[in-house]
Amino acid sequence: MSRQKRFLLQESDLPKQWYNIQADMPHKPLPPLNPATKQPVSVDDLAHIFCKACAQQELDTKNAWIDIPEEVQEKYKYYRATPLVRAYALEEALGTPAHIYFKNESVNPLGSHKVNSALPQCYYCKQEGVTNVTTETGAGQWGAALSYAASVYGLSAAVYQVKISMQQKPYRSLVMRAFGAAVTGSPSMSTRAGKDIITRDPLHQGSLGTAISEAVELATTTPNCKYTLGSVLNHVTLHQTIIGLEAEKQMAMAEEYPDVVIGCFGGGSNFGGLAFPFMRHNILEGKTTEFVAAEPDSCPKLTRGVFKYDFGDEAGYTPLLPMYTLGHDFKPANIHAGGLRYHGAGVIVSQLIKDGLMRGEDIPQLETFEAGTLFARTEGIIPAPESNHAIAAVIREAKRCKESGEKRVILFALSGHGLMDMTAYDQYLNGDLHNYSLSEESIAQSLKAVPEV
Amino acid sequence: MSRQKRFLLQESDLPKQWYNIQADMPHKPLPPLNPATKQPVSVDDLAHIFCKACAQQELDTKNAWIDIPEEVQEKYKYYRATPLVRAYALEEALGTPAHIYFKNESVNPLGSHKVNSALPQCYYCKQEGVTNVTTETGAGQWGAALSYAASVYGLSAAVYQVKISMQQKPYRSLVMRAFGAAVTGSPSMSTRAGKDIITRDPLHQGSLGTAISEAVELATTTPNCKYTLGSVLNHVTLHQTIIGLEAEKQMAMAEEYPDVVIGCFGGGSNFGGLAFPFMRHNILEGKTTEFVAAEPDSCPKLTRGVFKYDFGDEAGYTPLLPMYTLGHDFKPANIHAGGLRYHGAGVIVSQLIKDGLMRGEDIPQLETFEAGTLFARTEGIIPAPESNHAIAAVIREAKRCKESGEKRVILFALSGHGLMDMTAYDQYLNGDLHNYSLSEESIAQSLKAVPEV
Repeated sequence: MSRQKRFLLQESDLPKQWYNIQADMPHKPLPPLNPATKQPVSVDDLAHIFCKACAQQELDTKNAWIDIPEEVQEKYKYYRATPLVRAYALEEALGTPAHIYFKNESVNPLGSHKVNSALPQCYYCKQEGVTNVTTETGAGQWGAALSYAASVYGLSAAVYQVKISMQQKPYRSLVMRAFGAAVTGSPSMSTRAGKDIITRDPLHQGSLGTAISEAVELATTTPNCKYTLGSVLNHVTLHQTIIGLEAEKQMAMAEEYPDVVIGCFGGGSNFGGLAFPFMRHNILEGKTTEFVAAEPDSCPKLTRGVFKYDFGDEAGYTPLLPMYTLGHDFKPANIHAGGLRYHGAGVIVSQLIKDGLMRGEDIPQLETFEAGTLFARTEGIIPAPESNHAIAAVIREAKRCKESGEKRVILFALSGHGLMDMTAYDQYLNGDLHNYSLSEESIAQSLKAVPEV
Repeated sequence: MSRQKRFLLQESDLPKQWYNIQADMPHKPLPPLNPATKQPVSVDDLAHIFCKACAQQELDTKNAWIDIPEEVQEKYKYYRATPLVRAYALEEALGTPAHIYFKNESVNPLGSHKVNSALPQCYYCKQEGVTNVTTETGAGQWGAALSYAASVYGLSAAVYQVKISMQQKPYRSLVMRAFGAAVTGSPSMSTRAGKDIITRDPLHQGSLGTAISEAVELATTTPNCKYTLGSVLNHVTLHQTIIGLEAEKQMAMAEEYPDVVIGCFGGGSNFGGLAFPFMRHNILEGKTTEFVAAEPDSCPKLTRGVFKYDFGDEAGYTPLLPMYTLGHDFKPANIHAGGLRYHGAGVIVSQLIKDGLMRGEDIPQLETFEAGTLFARTEGIIPAPESNHAIAAVIREAKRCKESGEKRVILFALSGHGLMDMTAYDQYLNGDLHNYSLSEESIAQSLKAVPEV
């Protein structure tokens, strides 16, 4: 009865480069634009906000492989490679012929995949003489990762956390503070952007859009300070491809190849990090793997948004990005998947959807918690509410396989654990969680904020 | 600069047997006694409370190696082998020539080593036709593990959690509930033992001793129900030796052998689980490794207790055990290391201390949090308050090495992560945590409860 459950890479097999899908895309993403001039932004423009190395990676459409700095490789070893796991118990509970694998990014010091990009971003900042970093965070996975990485490289970190998430998940603020970061609920009165938002809407509960505005403002008004971002942008997803590159080697150890790759979707870094290394075989070698980005039906930019140039933040500080968006002042419902409450998709993913290389799937909150609870009781890991979206999409696919009798190979990213989201599970088990339907009218209303370019 | 950080075993190298040190001890532990007859208890006596397989293991002083059931081996694969990690960043922060390794038991679904024994205990119960299990828990690491294991084997679980810990760490109760367990704060009005304790002391905040009384009472008054325990007893430590047996192979991969092995100490299962496989080489081959059990100075049974027969619980339901004890109605201070707030030591460890094969070391609470915070900021893992005791003892040893210039090899158990103990870290960082000194008078007072045998 012995069968292999986990597929582990030794340190000597860790990838030494990240994969930049921009170089291989059939159609390159449209360029980000300066909102004043409507001209494409340059590396120097971006380097006002970000460190230079990240600005270069952001706009690099030429080099498919980017070296991981040796110092970052050393820090990756603190928790990587993460295991690839066959979900036998989940398969059995579903009675599906599908083979379900997951890349377990929850087994790292900070509990999610976010640290994969926090480490290189802080490393590059340190190299460039930056002393302070700012960022936004929703549920707090990114804020926790950034706080840790800042402490590794001796940087001061200031984190703006979405106010509603800070209330829902107080432990993650405490993790950030344990690593020495300053944490502020957003919108706050500490920035002009925050004051303006509170003036317009005194009860605003915050969104990633408001928190980004505040963090960018702090970065651009503080000496020797750069802004860091946990998702959406190309360089963040680039760093996350370590997940998929490891998974490729591990799937080979399992002697299988995925028919479907599934990730939850907020800005796209977790999804792209797992998917892009596999997608390159679709682009370059004609493989036919399906790629599914699972988003909340209460924040459905991929399935119900429009593809247009829009701002990345509520106040309009960022460059204009060509992306699927619900409008940059979209106010998402208070679902517990705080990391998925963002109005726009990354520009790479947006182009890939337009080109038919992947698709979105929207899922109601209750279905995600039902999926997460089944996963916990079978596989023994309580997933983050964000990851529950991926699991719900996996279960839909596995049930289709049960009906059709197909033995498809499904691979998904378990982006993080939910040990700090237990109040959400408690509400679910007590029957106190809800779905949030989103009317056509409210989407049409928030789309009015999208500027004409 | 590349150097190996983590040492990983493939599944095929997982141990297939546990190690039973009782077979190799120079002096066997004294037998547990029936409190009424003062005669040694038999397997059948113990099997009134525990499942039969565990009762047999408890009294087995003959067989050094016990087969791990194949079904348990399969479930161990869900998270084992755990990594052995070289703590380079901690070493550098301390400027010590010592080599520090830790066995990282925090990277499993439930966050601590406790699941190593929860799985076999529930497996054996299931095999014997048991349908319900009860247990006690302090900080909730054991309760969470038992709740998961019960759900794996389809058993109903009822957990009595120490009242003060339930208030300090509400998230762990929610984890137990997510796995379907019923959780009650102890002392409670749901048992005769609980009622008696509350009658004597209405503000009693609970201890492992009170919770054990309630769980044992529920097991012995409920049909088809057995009691399970998370530490102290021989069979629990037996199951935990998977930690040390893996670590032995992994230290060989690192081409080192420990000069000192350190674990935090509550009942002894985490400490013994790591230490005993190495200690057998001291006993059988004359190796000279030192073994240090780190306990809170507010619950110092190893360093300030007496070696006598005493009850394992507050109400006096358990057999009399020959152990180092502070008296079975000892009321420990409200330190955050809930798992270490127990009045007695396991009988094996007690005998080993008498025989000079290991020693205890007591550590004040503030020193443990200082150690844990340094560990978090260097190694990136926020440790459980229990594990912080081991880390503090490691840091003492590493500093001695710095003074003497000795390059000793230190191995310790990181028994769990502290992500659900963040309020404790917050209090520490805010200066709101305290040490608790324990007077000779108060120890003398609690020792009065130790019965004469």
